Amino acid sequence: MKYVYDFTEGDRTMADLLGGKGANLAEMTRLGLPVPPGFTITTVACQAYLRDGREPAGMGPQVGTALAATESRARRRLGDADRPLLLSVRSGARYSMPGMMETVLNIGLNDASVVGLAAETGSERFAWDSYRRLIQMFGRTVLGIPAERFEHALDAVKARAGAQVDVDLTAADLRGLVDDYRGIVIDQTGHEFPMDPYVQLDLAIRAVFDSWNTDRARIYRRQERIAEDLGTAVNVCTMVFGNRGEDSGTGVAFTRDPATGAPGVYGDWLPNAQGEDVVAGIRNTQTLADLQEQLPAVHAELLTIMGTLESHYRDLCDIEFTVEGGRLWMLQTRVGKRTAAAAFRIATQLVGEGLITLDEALERVTGQQLIQLMFPTFQPGSQRTLLARGIPASPGAAVGVIAFTAAEAIARAANGERPVLVRRETTPDDLAGMVASVAILTSRGGKTSHAAVVARGMGTTAVCGAEELEIDPAAGEVRSRSGALLRAGDMVSVDGTTGEVFLGEVPVMPSSVVRYFDGEITPADGEAGDIVDAVDILVRHADSVRRMAVRANADTAEDAARARRMGAAGIGLARTEHMFLGSRRVLIERLILATDDATREAALAALLPLQVGDVTELLEAMDGYPVVIRLIDPPLHEFLPDRTELAVRVARAEERGLTGAQVDADRLLLAAVERVSEHNPMMGMRGVRLGLQVPGLFGMQVRAIAEATAALLSQGRRPHPEIMVPLVATVAELEPVRREAVAIIADVAARTGMSLQIPLGTMIELPRAALTAQRIARAADFFSFGTNDLTQTTWGFSRDDVEAEFVGDYLERGILGTSPFETLDVHGVGELVRIACERGRSTRADIGLGVCGEHGGDPASIAFFDAVGLDYVSCSPFRVPVARLEAGRVALRGVAVSESR
Amino acid sequence: MKYVYDFTEGDRTMADLLGGKGANLAEMTRLGLPVPPGFTITTVACQAYLRDGREPAGMGPQVGTALAATESRARRRLGDADRPLLLSVRSGARYSMPGMMETVLNIGLNDASVVGLAAETGSERFAWDSYRRLIQMFGRTVLGIPAERFEHALDAVKARAGAQVDVDLTAADLRGLVDDYRGIVIDQTGHEFPMDPYVQLDLAIRAVFDSWNTDRARIYRRQERIAEDLGTAVNVCTMVFGNRGEDSGTGVAFTRDPATGAPGVYGDWLPNAQGEDVVAGIRNTQTLADLQEQLPAVHAELLTIMGTLESHYRDLCDIEFTVEGGRLWMLQTRVGKRTAAAAFRIATQLVGEGLITLDEALERVTGQQLIQLMFPTFQPGSQRTLLARGIPASPGAAVGVIAFTAAEAIARAANGERPVLVRRETTPDDLAGMVASVAILTSRGGKTSHAAVVARGMGTTAVCGAEELEIDPAAGEVRSRSGALLRAGDMVSVDGTTGEVFLGEVPVMPSSVVRYFDGEITPADGEAGDIVDAVDILVRHADSVRRMAVRANADTAEDAARARRMGAAGIGLARTEHMFLGSRRVLIERLILATDDATREAALAALLPLQVGDVTELLEAMDGYPVVIRLIDPPLHEFLPDRTELAVRVARAEERGLTGAQVDADRLLLAAVERVSEHNPMMGMRGVRLGLQVPGLFGMQVRAIAEATAALLSQGRRPHPEIMVPLVATVAELEPVRREAVAIIADVAARTGMSLQIPLGTMIELPRAALTAQRIARAADFFSFGTNDLTQTTWGFSRDDVEAEFVGDYLERGILGTSPFETLDVHGVGELVRIACERGRSTRADIGLGVCGEHGGDPASIAFFDAVGLDYVSCSPFRVPVARLEAGRVALRGVAVSESR
Repeated sequence: MKYVYDFTEGDRTMADLLGGKGANLAEMTRLGLPVPPGFTITTVACQAYLRDGREPAGMGPQVGTALAATESRARRRLGDADRPLLLSVRSGARYSMPGMMETVLNIGLNDASVVGLAAETGSERFAWDSYRRLIQMFGRTVLGIPAERFEHALDAVKARAGAQVDVDLTAADLRGLVDDYRGIVIDQTGHEFPMDPYVQLDLAIRAVFDSWNTDRARIYRRQERIAEDLGTAVNVCTMVFGNRGEDSGTGVAFTRDPATGAPGVYGDWLPNAQGEDVVAGIRNTQTLADLQEQLPAVHAELLTIMGTLESHYRDLCDIEFTVEGGRLWMLQTRVGKRTAAAAFRIATQLVGEGLITLDEALERVTGQQLIQLMFPTFQPGSQRTLLARGIPASPGAAVGVIAFTAAEAIARAANGERPVLVRRETTPDDLAGMVASVAILTSRGGKTSHAAVVARGMGTTAVCGAEELEIDPAAGEVRSRSGALLRAGDMVSVDGTTGEVFLGEVPVMPSSVVRYFDGEITPADGEAGDIVDAVDILVRHADSVRRMAVRANADTAEDAARARRMGAAGIGLARTEHMFLGSRRVLIERLILATDDATREAALAALLPLQVGDVTELLEAMDGYPVVIRLIDPPLHEFLPDRTELAVRVARAEERGLTGAQVDADRLLLAAVERVSEHNPMMGMRGVRLGLQVPGLFGMQVRAIAEATAALLSQGRRPHPEIMVPLVATVAELEPVRREAVAIIADVAARTGMSLQIPLGTMIELPRAALTAQRIARAADFFSFGTNDLTQTTWGFSRDDVEAEFVGDYLERGILGTSPFETLDVHGVGELVRIACERGRSTRADIGLGVCGEHGGDPASIAFFDAVGLDYVSCSPFRVPVARLEAGRVALRGVAVSESR
Repeated sequence: MKYVYDFTEGDRTMADLLGGKGANLAEMTRLGLPVPPGFTITTVACQAYLRDGREPAGMGPQVGTALAATESRARRRLGDADRPLLLSVRSGARYSMPGMMETVLNIGLNDASVVGLAAETGSERFAWDSYRRLIQMFGRTVLGIPAERFEHALDAVKARAGAQVDVDLTAADLRGLVDDYRGIVIDQTGHEFPMDPYVQLDLAIRAVFDSWNTDRARIYRRQERIAEDLGTAVNVCTMVFGNRGEDSGTGVAFTRDPATGAPGVYGDWLPNAQGEDVVAGIRNTQTLADLQEQLPAVHAELLTIMGTLESHYRDLCDIEFTVEGGRLWMLQTRVGKRTAAAAFRIATQLVGEGLITLDEALERVTGQQLIQLMFPTFQPGSQRTLLARGIPASPGAAVGVIAFTAAEAIARAANGERPVLVRRETTPDDLAGMVASVAILTSRGGKTSHAAVVARGMGTTAVCGAEELEIDPAAGEVRSRSGALLRAGDMVSVDGTTGEVFLGEVPVMPSSVVRYFDGEITPADGEAGDIVDAVDILVRHADSVRRMAVRANADTAEDAARARRMGAAGIGLARTEHMFLGSRRVLIERLILATDDATREAALAALLPLQVGDVTELLEAMDGYPVVIRLIDPPLHEFLPDRTELAVRVARAEERGLTGAQVDADRLLLAAVERVSEHNPMMGMRGVRLGLQVPGLFGMQVRAIAEATAALLSQGRRPHPEIMVPLVATVAELEPVRREAVAIIADVAARTGMSLQIPLGTMIELPRAALTAQRIARAADFFSFGTNDLTQTTWGFSRDDVEAEFVGDYLERGILGTSPFETLDVHGVGELVRIACERGRSTRADIGLGVCGEHGGDPASIAFFDAVGLDYVSCSPFRVPVARLEAGRVALRGVAVSESR
């Protein structure tokens, strides 16, 4: 088994084995770019080490061989007193885990080679500084000595020497510091700091292996959903020094602007410095233009190399480089991260430049990125004062007035203000206040905090964990680190996409992408032009390659029209219960509470023409496209007053001795509410159960659909309604509904002389429906997965309760990788979807299959829906372009089901 | 294809094809018993007829051939003017559907053959009476003429003749009546009554086929869960007449007493009568002793035949016979229905007589029958006055005082009385009153009415549809048909097993079978002896053949001890939340509502020793047997006051201006209750979710179990606890619980020096747990299916809500064949159980598998649990003997999964 690869042996396809960094170092070496000699120890070696507690047999000698080759190419020898080879030992996993694992630099220095280094570089100070850095880094990382022990010793030397900063220390000071450090090592470990550079190397490699399993690395992986068993590769590389004078330096660069996507190189340069110094931020970085001025040859070489890399990788690359004594060295490259806007722009630019195809461009962008582009943002270039920076927890841009309690937020909202709820952290008690607010801002917690989870669930802008803010609800104050003091009612602007919070009102700009889809602007309009153009090109290309259709969930003609503009090819879910709100609520209330036929029939008769109107509007707005109309699935509690509130009102009236029509009405209503009140309304008298129980209700709706269709047909329109029955658990519930519907449609067809072809199908939103899909398919022309309810019943979670109570806690602990209400739980809920598709098709090979739960618009879930072969996804109109894009992407990728825990 | 079988051609194994009656007529013919000649048309012919709307090709000629053979054996010819053959045409399906389908007698009479019949029998009156009966029966059944048309004509003739009863009519009267009847036929159908006996026969056969699909037959099949597509056979048989004088007659008989199981023949005899007369109940029947006196040779022959049949069928047989002119004819036999007690007695008697084996005896009894024997009954032979008879809706015997409203029942119960809720029918509003009552009595509705479904769910005695009662709640009266008048507070006795309701108090006798298992009596004690003996023999035999173990659900040492007496080999579910009720409630309340660590830890510290005591008692009571202890799964609302009631109390106190400690406490409690109140508590903060949320709660319980176990081990006892985690949806919830438990158990083991082997497993009670069982099995030593909750989530039903609201309605409509809370829904919930077993075993081949939902004690569900390979079922102590018996029966039958819709 080969555990060690020289940089000359690998390539970029070997990232699983060599890690991302190692594979790209090998690729650059292969391209003939100036990479310092070195080698990579594989992830397989790491896996074996972590499993068995020791290096796999054979790894040691392979390291020896690779080391010899490195020495030979570098023309240096490890531990040599003349030309010592110094090595960096860095982690490099398959997926980037920035800052999570360990690095040891300057391996190879000891009492002998430090002399050689001093002689060679002509700088004793440099040599001893490098030596003390080795002991410090090695001591902390390899030997586990608390960092502050070294820091205290450094401070003590500085105090003795009267030095303000490190660079004020002399070679002698540093030499003394090396002695102090070695004392600390003996004190803490009982052993001398190892003089043998081979021992240093071995221990450093082990320390990198071990660092895979630190707590912070584990937590990071859980959050980023990186598998636990991958392990890290270890890159052992000849040290190059950017801190050896004015003809040295270090930098990072991008082949295009990763923020905007603008073409042309872009980067930071710091002369006479090491990479660490850039990270430490001691000095301000310069630009690549400065490099061009200072070292024109190096700059020219760098630009050539960057051109080579971009052509080779055919994508934006970022690089790290060091210049040592006028010589350029490449230390890292990779395909660079970028903003959503940059992703779309770069992808289409590269197509324009002939570097990639449209298919490839489509794979370079994600639905998640498109979502980001569809939120409003703050006007670019507008005046703004940063108040604080936190974690971007729920995207969007919102402006409002500070409220410190849920009650205050509710009161301000009632008063017509737009409250921003500002709290240290939120709890389930704050829920009503969160609903009333335009944004949420907390000083504690991250993306999985209660505030973040609930805000995302509601689509409300949120910034969490803005730790610079000191929030004092009792005093009604919030104070920033910079000293700003704000009180309740003060205006703030919250950017949930970037995590920034600004003082006062920053002008909000609607998404140009949304305005484009809404037909308000065209690609030709102004500066938004090229991003709109890029989105347009890629969404249209997605349309040309995708297998699945995209429909929208829309209950009104207005929503339907918007859905059309967004590119929906039909409606996948029109909820008729929403048609019963407003002024019609009294009719449905009467219907639900009716105890006699006359009352019920009168209510139904009054509803029929209204319902015909509703359906007609929808079908007109979607003329020529399918419209799935779900028969009423009333959440009774939404139609009726709260039992406790009503009981309290009645009790208070009684205590006050009040009488009269209102009190009597309240008392009657309370009795009725108590009659229909349920312990678990989610699992009670809903959907088809209610339809079977209330005579004539479903029938009225079916008649309305049939009559609207017949009338439109007679006008030469092309209505395509589909009737959907909610909450079916057994085919025996569906059969009578189907029988009644078929009879009513036949009756309307006979009376109007129109030929009515109206498919009838069912929601699959209960586990039992999925499990018995082969039976249900006998009575259903199509299935539509209601993944919201299916998630609730499969998990035994009520979303109303658990999102506020413990989904956040579960995400924090890594019990959930993502909320199953945001992204489809593939193993549980997805398994039921898979089973239902399979069994449904076994009965009716051509059964229609779609999804209308919120997951229909979730990019991470769409791949699964494609893989199980759904005909369409249906989502909110706003998400339709996202679904179109993502459906195209998955069609290119082929079957690839995302994994969840 | 052979559609017609002569009685000489079939046998009893052919019931699918010939129906039950036809197969047994053939069997008796084969045995050489005196069966009138005839033939059977198969169910396959019926199926074809019903499918195609006409007889299958070839059936007609086969009927002709069979008819010729019958004529030949009977030495008569159809329509003959001298010795006319008369035929009966009767339905005979695979499963008995008494009274559901049609029969036509006396086929073959017409204006010619009636003369022959008169001459042959010497009775013109008999001949014309037979003729008019044919037209009447044929007219109604075959021609669909309303029965009252013929009854009015009969009444008119009787009036003209001054006759009181039919037998007063003369031959001339009857001849006139035949003319009247034929007029009615022409009037109603436009055609003459068919004179051609072949036409009569064909039309009668079709009428029987058609009668498979009458509404009442459909409803009956739905209720009895008989498949719709079986169809009926038709038996065409030579008529024999029991009404031809004193040496004729008709009777039914049993080879043993079907009520008690006592050996010796038992039957009814009616001289000079047809079977119809017995049914009509015009004359009182006599006994077989009377037959012996009147016709000793016939009686002797009958006894010989009955002996033959019992030896041949090796079981209790019932028979129908007719004697015509001193000659005995067998018209039907079948294995007879019997009471539960008779089933057990007869089965063991037949073993004693060497007719059957113990295995066969075990197959002759059912768990459902054993359940019946375990309810209390009214003292046999005690004085009683029947008030009414209704449908036995929920078994048991209960005595109490009449309450006409739910409120009254609640008030009486609060007053220490035992109310019997008497209503026309119940609605969900009556639920609280039903809970407060010892029995429920309604005048409307059947086994699937709301009252019946809810009563069975609660285990409360109920009689429904006692139509003889006129209930007037407004007047506070109930009146029986016999004229008895009762008022609220009057005493009644309700027998839910028989459907009888008695005036006043009838002494209740506890079940002797239960007393036997409880060790209160032995088989040697008195008259209960032989039933106890029979149950004992068969349950023990079941023990010797069954594969599955039987455990009990028991929360207390008392329950555990009872479970042991009932034969439980361990506890499958000990609910620790029930240990937190009573005086400890305050501790758990404090724990749930705690907002600071100190309060919570104090509550936990106080609970630990109590919990150690609870566990110790349980383990002691089940020494040597496994005890599955479920970590707390608190239904929060059971521990806390009702939100609405509390809010009303606070509001009233505020309105009255009350202040003080109580009001303050109420206000605080209300705030806390509102904090934890949930929209759908079934799907909220429960089970492992709460365990992960409340630090130390599960840990305290695990510690209690470990400490109790260590202490018992040190005393030389054999404790076998198993720890069960509730409501797990993902292995990621189980893993941290397991890690904590392992650490605590190791700690206790180390501190006590005891070796603690405590398996840790999980409930499978959410669809997701079943679907991801292969993952969950990584952290679970065993699964226990919580089929109650699994049914709720799979169907999206909350039992609290739907049993009262619509399960009854669904049963009435046939949407449900049985409540999924009574008998496992094999297709939905069972599918998840099957999937979980399969996937769980794929990860851990030896994973323990059991069920602890109420279905564990349901006879109809146990076969399924055996088929999927569970190791044990766990049920209430009372059901343990039933589960033992049923587990033995299914072991004999092998894999046989019951079907549900």
